[in-house]
Amino acid sequence: MRPDSALITDLYQLTMMQAYFDHGMDDMAVFDFFVRDMPRRNFLIAAGLEQVIAFLEGLKVEPDEIDYLRGTGLFSDRFLEYLSGFRFRGEVHAMPEGTLFFSNEPILRVTAPLPQAQLVESRIINLLHLQTLIASKAARMGLAAPGKQLVDFGLRRAHGAEAGVLAARAGYIAGLDATATVQAGQLFGIPVSGTMAHSFIEAHDDEAAAFRTFATSQPENTILLIDTYDTQAGAEKVVSVARDLAERGIQIKGVRIDSGDLAQAAVQVRGILDRGGLQDVKILVSGSLDEHRLKALMDVAAPIDGYGIGTRMDTSSDDPYMDCAYKLSEYAGLARRKQSEGKATWPGRKQVFRYYEADGTLARDSLSLETDDQPGQPLLYPMMHAGTRRMVAPDLEQVRRYAQAEMGRLPDRLRALDKADPPYPVQIADPLEALAREVDARLA
Amino acid sequence: MRPDSALITDLYQLTMMQAYFDHGMDDMAVFDFFVRDMPRRNFLIAAGLEQVIAFLEGLKVEPDEIDYLRGTGLFSDRFLEYLSGFRFRGEVHAMPEGTLFFSNEPILRVTAPLPQAQLVESRIINLLHLQTLIASKAARMGLAAPGKQLVDFGLRRAHGAEAGVLAARAGYIAGLDATATVQAGQLFGIPVSGTMAHSFIEAHDDEAAAFRTFATSQPENTILLIDTYDTQAGAEKVVSVARDLAERGIQIKGVRIDSGDLAQAAVQVRGILDRGGLQDVKILVSGSLDEHRLKALMDVAAPIDGYGIGTRMDTSSDDPYMDCAYKLSEYAGLARRKQSEGKATWPGRKQVFRYYEADGTLARDSLSLETDDQPGQPLLYPMMHAGTRRMVAPDLEQVRRYAQAEMGRLPDRLRALDKADPPYPVQIADPLEALAREVDARLA
Repeated sequence: MRPDSALITDLYQLTMMQAYFDHGMDDMAVFDFFVRDMPRRNFLIAAGLEQVIAFLEGLKVEPDEIDYLRGTGLFSDRFLEYLSGFRFRGEVHAMPEGTLFFSNEPILRVTAPLPQAQLVESRIINLLHLQTLIASKAARMGLAAPGKQLVDFGLRRAHGAEAGVLAARAGYIAGLDATATVQAGQLFGIPVSGTMAHSFIEAHDDEAAAFRTFATSQPENTILLIDTYDTQAGAEKVVSVARDLAERGIQIKGVRIDSGDLAQAAVQVRGILDRGGLQDVKILVSGSLDEHRLKALMDVAAPIDGYGIGTRMDTSSDDPYMDCAYKLSEYAGLARRKQSEGKATWPGRKQVFRYYEADGTLARDSLSLETDDQPGQPLLYPMMHAGTRRMVAPDLEQVRRYAQAEMGRLPDRLRALDKADPPYPVQIADPLEALAREVDARLA
Repeated sequence: MRPDSALITDLYQLTMMQAYFDHGMDDMAVFDFFVRDMPRRNFLIAAGLEQVIAFLEGLKVEPDEIDYLRGTGLFSDRFLEYLSGFRFRGEVHAMPEGTLFFSNEPILRVTAPLPQAQLVESRIINLLHLQTLIASKAARMGLAAPGKQLVDFGLRRAHGAEAGVLAARAGYIAGLDATATVQAGQLFGIPVSGTMAHSFIEAHDDEAAAFRTFATSQPENTILLIDTYDTQAGAEKVVSVARDLAERGIQIKGVRIDSGDLAQAAVQVRGILDRGGLQDVKILVSGSLDEHRLKALMDVAAPIDGYGIGTRMDTSSDDPYMDCAYKLSEYAGLARRKQSEGKATWPGRKQVFRYYEADGTLARDSLSLETDDQPGQPLLYPMMHAGTRRMVAPDLEQVRRYAQAEMGRLPDRLRALDKADPPYPVQIADPLEALAREVDARLA
């Protein structure tokens, strides 16, 4: 499968395009991507823009794809010819990756001829949804376990290869320290980290022999998994193996515990290691961890130095999707909105203005039209012009530092894992309310 | 990103491989993939094998990947040279895609030299987890709404492109009728289906004009979205537009409702359409649907012909991951198991034997060693030999029909959406129990 194919789209984008094509509907359209509601999150972190820009810049329909579409019988030859020369030439405004945002705030706006803006809907949502979902989940891990080493172990149960690789990226943006996913290291320069699996221990006839084998082959990476048979016995073996290894100049860096009562096991193991003179050996734990389990381990001050976080982060398991949308807000110079029951949208070219407290924490946001002359900080910036990237892509390290700075501006009540009540205030400004009334009057 | 790259793996697979390489540990290893527990499902449907086989057949490490690995400083030149010539040459036994299975039953077994079997762990889990998760979720949709047209709309909120495309495949195996995801149509021959978006309606100054534009461009595909402004008014416009279109030989096939109280709206719309002489126009609905909402709509006999099912299926939102694992069960001729607290595994080369009632429904399964001479139907078949596919891949239509036949053998109590108590019986046979005791005695 080709993740960057133009056919990573819903069929209706193409059937609508055929109709737009037939009827000459290629005036400029404006679409917003936003999250409608966030029932289990106090804030979200924008992520995925970089992949959206790369997708839009490279977008074209390949000959075999044209052939496939022809075979469906739904499209005219003239339309397929147009499609074979298709390129995205529109503009994109967006919040930089790492920006905090809230319900109803557009984080990306596409301005392009209607057929262009339509075709890209599905993949834009797909990319922004995934990384924003995971970055926002990962940020909660950092809030629960500040100062601890957090490593992404989630590839295996992420929903496919792309989900695993992009979850590693989103998690790193949101403050994780490393990932086990090797391709994420290659593609994005994220530090990679890994220990050993139970199979490694089991493949040896003796646990201590397994520790020795691994340490001599990975002297810079000696994190030993000690719970395959009996965690305390495993820790005792580490102590005895450490002596032999020290004579060979190899130092054990850490141990990992992946089962049982992690707090209790960590206390026992810490005791064994300390009594064995291994005060510098770190304790890492893993296994069904999420922000609530991290917080519980932190609350009892378990002697744990790092956490491997997998499935529950990479699937955002408590909230595996966001109620997000990509909606038309203007076409051919006229503001537009849908009025569907419970799903009405805000019309026009919008901007989000942010206001801060004197100490720099977030105070409130105002959602308005971009022509509004508000003193707040505007959050949407021009990112693409005429189908081309407008500014140099920030380094992922810069994005990560920016996200950390953003997190530092979160008011305390939004840093809690439970839902804050009232939520962060996002006010609808008068000019936007007025435009919505105007659109409704026109449609009435 | 490259979904079929060998670097879609966890770092520890490679660091363990370096240690295996250094110490000549390349004896034959046996690993099982299985699901430990299924707290919210009465049955699972095996899916994803085809992608696993393609991955294993094509697996190699590219020069740029070797360069990246060299840069980490964790690997020796000799090992990297070995890795650059790496191929998977092992054997795979598996349940055919579409097979029903239950907790603790291996659905795939890899038999290969230890380093080969180790490297592929992460991606095998990643592929089998995703499609099995989604097929098992999708099957519940079919149980909730038998006989209805079910279409996958989930790409946009699936976790990445691969998740969207493979969810379409898994859903189709489990009985859905079509997908909106175009690349899934191209790659797998799944019927594609689509209607129109709200943006299409909004881009026109008049809803009836939008209906006309679409119908003349898509005369074979005239499913009109009627809830953009007011659903009943939308239905009335369909009636009036239908008369004009009929004169031009175009017949409206259906309408879609995407918001509000779907049961109530469907009743109102059905009345409007019928009174307008459009008894043949079908009603499709969409919007946050899952098996429970489908069942509720079926229970009130809402006049709905088809359902667009999206996010909640493609993310398996009530249960977004399975507790699955890929565990060593034999190495160098000796059976192995881990004994970690709460995560112990079954050793040896296993087989699942299935027993049926007289009427063909499933009675019980027995998990045993493959050498056991049981009369039940064995479920694991040889699928790859020496790294090569052993049998012609079944056509996806065949897989789908097989899955439907399997579903037809489900006992009634497993067809309920709620968890059956007691669950389906999977008995551990005596030879397997005996081997586990033997392994424990050896390790004690």
